[in-house]
Amino acid sequence: MCSVISRVKPVQRALALTLRLGTSTERSSYAAAERRRFSPGVTTRVDPLLAPCRSYCSRMALTEGLLFRQLFEKESSTYTYLLADTETKEAILVDPVLETIDRDLKLIHELGVNLKVAVNTHCHADHITSTGLMKKRLVGLKSAISKYSGATADILLSEGDKITFGKHYLTVRETPGHTDGCVTLVSWDQSMAFTGDALLIRGCGRTDFQQGSPEKLYESVHQKIFTLPDQCLVYPAHDYLGQTASTVGEERKFNPRLTKSLVEFANIMNNLNLPKPKKIDISVPANLVCGVHEV
Amino acid sequence: MCSVISRVKPVQRALALTLRLGTSTERSSYAAAERRRFSPGVTTRVDPLLAPCRSYCSRMALTEGLLFRQLFEKESSTYTYLLADTETKEAILVDPVLETIDRDLKLIHELGVNLKVAVNTHCHADHITSTGLMKKRLVGLKSAISKYSGATADILLSEGDKITFGKHYLTVRETPGHTDGCVTLVSWDQSMAFTGDALLIRGCGRTDFQQGSPEKLYESVHQKIFTLPDQCLVYPAHDYLGQTASTVGEERKFNPRLTKSLVEFANIMNNLNLPKPKKIDISVPANLVCGVHEV
Repeated sequence: MCSVISRVKPVQRALALTLRLGTSTERSSYAAAERRRFSPGVTTRVDPLLAPCRSYCSRMALTEGLLFRQLFEKESSTYTYLLADTETKEAILVDPVLETIDRDLKLIHELGVNLKVAVNTHCHADHITSTGLMKKRLVGLKSAISKYSGATADILLSEGDKITFGKHYLTVRETPGHTDGCVTLVSWDQSMAFTGDALLIRGCGRTDFQQGSPEKLYESVHQKIFTLPDQCLVYPAHDYLGQTASTVGEERKFNPRLTKSLVEFANIMNNLNLPKPKKIDISVPANLVCGVHEV
Repeated sequence: MCSVISRVKPVQRALALTLRLGTSTERSSYAAAERRRFSPGVTTRVDPLLAPCRSYCSRMALTEGLLFRQLFEKESSTYTYLLADTETKEAILVDPVLETIDRDLKLIHELGVNLKVAVNTHCHADHITSTGLMKKRLVGLKSAISKYSGATADILLSEGDKITFGKHYLTVRETPGHTDGCVTLVSWDQSMAFTGDALLIRGCGRTDFQQGSPEKLYESVHQKIFTLPDQCLVYPAHDYLGQTASTVGEERKFNPRLTKSLVEFANIMNNLNLPKPKKIDISVPANLVCGVHEV
């Protein structure tokens, strides 16, 4: 297991949750959400919707020492995210795209950061990841993806894993439904959630190919994303209308699909009648091996 | 004059500069730059490059109570910026595009903000502004553009003007060169500069039409933008490669044109041999009247 990934065992995690309850919004709200999920009749001490949240400006979290860049690939309308610790220069990249590998590597070089992990939020069907090719160009780079994706990678991610870069980290929340191996990556301070295709701005990923399931997706978003603080910024894997970010509060209020009941949501998702993604027959097999035959 | 614009007279401004020197990075660095510009042999007490800067994370400034959204219009690759005070809900919009007016108005409505001013960084040649049409849809909205743009608007901006929204404001810095009426809008804490077409990410606006002048543009960028703190985020009016932001420090170091000497820069700009912008004959006359015949 790569040193940048720390896996918290269930017992240790429960202890950490108890110890940190009330001081960590992420821990407390997530714990509360988990308790509510498995014990719906039990009143929790801390409700994530009422818990005091740090007052983030909606443009960004109030955290020092983080370098953050959102990048766009126009053919597949994919967002790639670069995050780095400005002190240690350790960096991670979320959802890099093959077509923009030169742009991304140039930026990484110019910023002088040391890319440790390139992580995919899921096995994409609309574009090929640059993870594999990037590994060939950057010594020491590790690829990461959910263990449920079916894909090969250096690091297979599970619920609760932390992807660290310097003093920062993203925590893995499994959010299946678009595919079985979809994850949402939540920043240490819950100011940002990289939602992949699970939650898009005023939308969500399709559920009509790979292992798509409206029921799973609905539960994932409501249990794992909508339980984050209102101010938490939502950074999706795609946007087709020129929107760059949203917040959990906004999506909980205005998402035209996920504000509906499960039955209504499933009905919407099962009747989208969208064409098959153009690149699915090329992208999925390629992405199962990090975009190249040798990962 | 609109109440949201405060104009500081030269004498008052000099006094303010003196009083605030050392406490306000914007004032001090700008004052230093101005002094150096007009008295190149005089050593200033505060060098903008050495002045202590607030430690911004590069993704965003550390300011509470600001709502910030970057929006993209794909046909002209234009960025529109929405900024609002989360307490008072007063908002401003920078460089809105006609094609995306419905998206922008929907977002403004959903976020519950009260749009006071729609400002253009210059008279665009590649797209039509939505400012005029937006004024018809939002009661009380004022349009703003540089007094040197030749365009009609409710507010004609000059150097040093402040566009306020709640407790926040953007300060006007005149940055001619792409056109005579180009301005850069700098946030109160110098964490963000909306550079229009004066400075793009690793590039700059053309100087071969309207009132384009490589010499003016070079001086504008070096005197008015490169004197901002390294960490100041650069938000341009356009990007064609999927980049969403840069910093002053990066552009000062890596901009392939503006790191050159003035002679080399002028040579580059005078030999770009780019085709005439497709929409210039429609856009410029329209933008001179806020995109519509009645502003």
